[in-house]
Amino acid sequence: MTELTGPTNTTKVVVDVMLKPEILDPQGQAVSAALPRLGFNFASSVRQGKRFEIEVEGEVTVEKLAEITKAAETLLANPVIETFVVKVEN
Amino acid sequence: MTELTGPTNTTKVVVDVMLKPEILDPQGQAVSAALPRLGFNFASSVRQGKRFEIEVEGEVTVEKLAEITKAAETLLANPVIETFVVKVEN
Repeated sequence: MTELTGPTNTTKVVVDVMLKPEILDPQGQAVSAALPRLGFNFASSVRQGKRFEIEVEGEVTVEKLAEITKAAETLLANPVIETFVVKVEN
Repeated sequence: MTELTGPTNTTKVVVDVMLKPEILDPQGQAVSAALPRLGFNFASSVRQGKRFEIEVEGEVTVEKLAEITKAAETLLANPVIETFVVKVEN
């Protein structure tokens, strides 16, 4: 018998990657400059980063989280210029 | 006298933009394919999106949140292919 593994058996882990505050962020600056041109004046600064939504099979153990953190350091973020946060959703 | 408005007077609002589930995500697929090559086998799927960190002066009122949502619809996300979530941090 084959086991059906639908989205109910997976956990979503989110990795948010942002440029370090001291690193210039041209994308964020472009958004920041475009907002007032469109009539939006709420923002004093905008930074743009990346969000990774990772579906993990089964339970998220401490070991799995450590592995995800290692992958974030290696592949998802460049620790020289970026910081990242790993979060388990729900 | 000039008023000093440092980061203490601002509130961080985050807009997370993700491609809709039915839209192909080549960036996420590239990450998903690279992970096992690097020895990481935790992910059953990866989706990549954008994260905007917006510093808003003063308190975030319902009116300001509505304006940020309008800006997200107009500039930060393409509602035809993307969904977004507006969150106030802390």
